[in-house]
Amino acid sequence: MLEPVVSLVNGVKTQQIDIQNRGMAFGDGVFETMRLTQGHIPLLDLHKARLHVGIKTLGLNYSEAALNKHLAQLFSIINDSNIASGRVKLIVARGQGGQGGQGGQGGQGVNPSPDAGVDVSILLYASQLAAWVQPAVALKTSRVQLPHNVNLAGIKHLNRLDYVLAAQAAMPAENEQVLLLDVANNLIETVHHNVFFIRGSEVITPSLARCGVNGVFKQWLVNSVIPKAGLQLVEREISRVDAEACDACFITNAYSGLTPVTAINGHLFNSCEKLNAITGEINQILGDK
Amino acid sequence: MLEPVVSLVNGVKTQQIDIQNRGMAFGDGVFETMRLTQGHIPLLDLHKARLHVGIKTLGLNYSEAALNKHLAQLFSIINDSNIASGRVKLIVARGQGGQGGQGGQGGQGVNPSPDAGVDVSILLYASQLAAWVQPAVALKTSRVQLPHNVNLAGIKHLNRLDYVLAAQAAMPAENEQVLLLDVANNLIETVHHNVFFIRGSEVITPSLARCGVNGVFKQWLVNSVIPKAGLQLVEREISRVDAEACDACFITNAYSGLTPVTAINGHLFNSCEKLNAITGEINQILGDK
Repeated sequence: MLEPVVSLVNGVKTQQIDIQNRGMAFGDGVFETMRLTQGHIPLLDLHKARLHVGIKTLGLNYSEAALNKHLAQLFSIINDSNIASGRVKLIVARGQGGQGGQGGQGGQGVNPSPDAGVDVSILLYASQLAAWVQPAVALKTSRVQLPHNVNLAGIKHLNRLDYVLAAQAAMPAENEQVLLLDVANNLIETVHHNVFFIRGSEVITPSLARCGVNGVFKQWLVNSVIPKAGLQLVEREISRVDAEACDACFITNAYSGLTPVTAINGHLFNSCEKLNAITGEINQILGDK
Repeated sequence: MLEPVVSLVNGVKTQQIDIQNRGMAFGDGVFETMRLTQGHIPLLDLHKARLHVGIKTLGLNYSEAALNKHLAQLFSIINDSNIASGRVKLIVARGQGGQGGQGGQGGQGVNPSPDAGVDVSILLYASQLAAWVQPAVALKTSRVQLPHNVNLAGIKHLNRLDYVLAAQAAMPAENEQVLLLDVANNLIETVHHNVFFIRGSEVITPSLARCGVNGVFKQWLVNSVIPKAGLQLVEREISRVDAEACDACFITNAYSGLTPVTAINGHLFNSCEKLNAITGEINQILGDK
């Protein structure tokens, strides 16, 4: 387990939070896990944009200005220290409001209220970062399927029990990641990554309209990298049979970048020129930052 | 907001928990909200049984013996104090394990491990308790529907965002509770209660096979009270049309007991003799404890 070098809660250096915080009680909040590279956070605008979609979805009382204030404090600490690279986790959770008693609308049934308060925590872990394109891994599916939930699809909220159960059920080896199917048996994502397939000149990624997290690295890839590599992005439902008909597979997240996939449950993928074109673009744009 | 008179985390009097606790990070835990009446917790065995179903479902490393130790500490505090009645909230959350770094199976994708640790918090709120049968309320449906999730249906886990969103969307008045439908438009429960309908000699309650919390008071009612009142329990899917054809409606939870329902979205229910028979049984069994 990595110990954070800096842990801030509402701007104060502490690793403690009130047990009644609604993030703890009900998973009532959102988070981002970000890469810190040479003193800056790549794709920060996309992280902020997704956070604000989540904040709006949950009706949290938190503004872009408040976020910028907390991030400025983080960058000030980074500038004053020897920390050049690492991982930053940021949580925005509804505070202690709404713990009403008998008969009231307290507890999980909070109404949106500026009085509920918001707690922001920032954890910074110093680490040596690997390159933006990682060594390949194998994927292993889990029998625990993701439910469809249009209330929360796309955002990175604190209700992640389905992922915990899926990872437990799959028991992945060291060089494996757990691939999740939804209740309609479509491939969705891994516990930690979005997933992509290449077939001909198409890059296919699962539709996340009913479940899954709309990854920041994924968004950047879709909008900036894949068009530059001369490929067409297709977002749609993908079954395991569809996936096995593809030429290559890879997974992405904002901390690790792109990881090629060698196999899903033993079905082998070969690397292909088109994947090389994507990784080449990534290294060119992000590699020297 | 009620302030707890006693707050314990792993047996220590504190209101703070580590920000990296997996209950906070991923909602990785279960909880119970219990009524304390004259120094004892009614239906305690049912609370413990549901907690252990949740602990087993989530693969938490926590035993009945450990639970009994924490409850003994609570009752010792209750005995040494003037606290005779109130509300007790108990959380069992997976501790700080599994926060792995790059490439590992850390984060939300924990594997079951005795090393992950478990944090137990107990919050005790002193309060004047109302009778086991409450004044009637009206129900109001929410446009936010409960997703089907067979991974987690029935247990009282910390992933409660759908309920938060449903309550926000409905904006209930003081004497209203929010009634939730699932994505198939069946009635399931309120944000805080199980729901029952009476039609002839049948007491009908929604099937919770795909979503909802299997309430402790509900279980006791189903197994002990309803048969004694000479009624038949039916657990099945219930649409709004089905519900409106019924004679009476009521809601239950382990803290408040039974609350009659006057109306759902303006459709009126009358109290009926059969509901009186149930409330009579409740008062006879629990009223003098």
